[in-house]
Amino acid sequence: MALLFALVIDPVASEDRRESYSDTFTAVDPCGPVLPLGELSAQRGDGVFESIGVVDGHAQEVGPHLERLAQSAQLVDLPAPNAAQWREAIARVAAEAGAGESVIKLILSRGLDEGSAPTSWITLASAPDNALARTEGVRVVTLERGYQLDVPGRAPWLLLGAKTLSYAVNMAAIREAKRRGADDAVFVTSDGYVLEAPTASVILRVGDRFVTPEPHAGILHGTTQLSLFAHLGRRGFSTAYEAVLLSDLKNADAAWLLSSVRLAAPISAVDGAAKRVDRALTDELNAYLLSPRH
Amino acid sequence: MALLFALVIDPVASEDRRESYSDTFTAVDPCGPVLPLGELSAQRGDGVFESIGVVDGHAQEVGPHLERLAQSAQLVDLPAPNAAQWREAIARVAAEAGAGESVIKLILSRGLDEGSAPTSWITLASAPDNALARTEGVRVVTLERGYQLDVPGRAPWLLLGAKTLSYAVNMAAIREAKRRGADDAVFVTSDGYVLEAPTASVILRVGDRFVTPEPHAGILHGTTQLSLFAHLGRRGFSTAYEAVLLSDLKNADAAWLLSSVRLAAPISAVDGAAKRVDRALTDELNAYLLSPRH
Repeated sequence: MALLFALVIDPVASEDRRESYSDTFTAVDPCGPVLPLGELSAQRGDGVFESIGVVDGHAQEVGPHLERLAQSAQLVDLPAPNAAQWREAIARVAAEAGAGESVIKLILSRGLDEGSAPTSWITLASAPDNALARTEGVRVVTLERGYQLDVPGRAPWLLLGAKTLSYAVNMAAIREAKRRGADDAVFVTSDGYVLEAPTASVILRVGDRFVTPEPHAGILHGTTQLSLFAHLGRRGFSTAYEAVLLSDLKNADAAWLLSSVRLAAPISAVDGAAKRVDRALTDELNAYLLSPRH
Repeated sequence: MALLFALVIDPVASEDRRESYSDTFTAVDPCGPVLPLGELSAQRGDGVFESIGVVDGHAQEVGPHLERLAQSAQLVDLPAPNAAQWREAIARVAAEAGAGESVIKLILSRGLDEGSAPTSWITLASAPDNALARTEGVRVVTLERGYQLDVPGRAPWLLLGAKTLSYAVNMAAIREAKRRGADDAVFVTSDGYVLEAPTASVILRVGDRFVTPEPHAGILHGTTQLSLFAHLGRRGFSTAYEAVLLSDLKNADAAWLLSSVRLAAPISAVDGAAKRVDRALTDELNAYLLSPRH
């Protein structure tokens, strides 16, 4: 997607309190040359990011996204981002968004070589049209993520709980899904547990109960899933974090992929086996997800 | 390391034959702004690369590096690079290198969003001073790579045989090694097999026999290892590709990490247990690796 607006951010220490951080923002040409070739984001995917949904100029769930950015930064040994600085930058960028849906992306990169400061930037783009995914749903194939459920907890250097810029495997999994005639992938462990999609969380419905894989070190804790579980709780459903087997996904009454921009996409098939799409409930979930959330 | 010279390359089809490709090269400021923020290399580590050692202006093992670049490109569904175009670009950049050791890096990125053409560039930098690593050696710790030996063959979307720009895990492993008081890491599978270091191949010596882990889908086939095995063969040693257990590494008479720029770094300790460094043989191996190779 073409970028519409961008700021480069000169990062300040996380405890640096100011009335405004605007003098640390530099508006740059969103499509012109900005990054040097030596940028470690470009050379090694060495950094972390967040994608925030924006609806009619309102950036959704800014707090949870900034918390996850800080957690990712810690996992890759980058300095803690200054939340107030990023909040102001997000507000500045969201002010450029028109009506409808947009995406704000926060990027925190290792920077240049030779121990220089991290590089940070924030961009605004129009959101892709996700109407079809939200109504007809997405067909998924399950793909092995290569490790067993207990690995990430003992091997933090695998960064499986960080949202890093090293997304080549996530992108390759989506291409593999499309090669198999599906729309998206769901990663499973080598011992048969459901993890997450390359860019989304997975939730299942079994009766009046909603379940998502336990966010251990191996998956990201989805901000949209978190927000939706709170909503479902208010609606009187029970929600739970559990170890979810592939058979649980196949047998569930319904399932969705949840992400910040596509929002709730019902899963219409798993490995070629059709799954019922609950159109009315999905519409209601997306109406909630499109309402202003904090 | 600061970049000294850089060309952006306008990629042409792999079968496009010309007398010269020089009009597809654009010299750019190696330290100035070049890449747009939307570059998928910077946003998602989505691309592949090679690092080539340069000694006194001679780029080493260009053919094997270009073959591996093509193999990596195929694994991530990028168009095949035009080898003649890259060869000319490498020669052009190598001509800028002075005496001593340098590094040429080839990068092939997915490009911008919206299905645009891939972006390619090539850079020259001075090599870091590797004298100490080549003589005193490197202390390594073994770190779990998270999967079992048989996984990569059945899960090509994990891209474990491609040299992608998504190197955050490799960098995190090196940081973890340093946190543990070592210099570098060696990845092992969850079932106890030695794979490779984050940026190097591993070879062992047992008597007059040299062994390296079989280059299956899970590791890169090291260009330096390949060249050194040919040299060792000519010197009368036997060489073999085998499944190498962690105990084999610990019990080996000697072991080295091999890479294009640091060359042969003897392993002086594994997980805190000292290993004998054969200074004379290592010096001889590095003298070979520093001689002009094709």
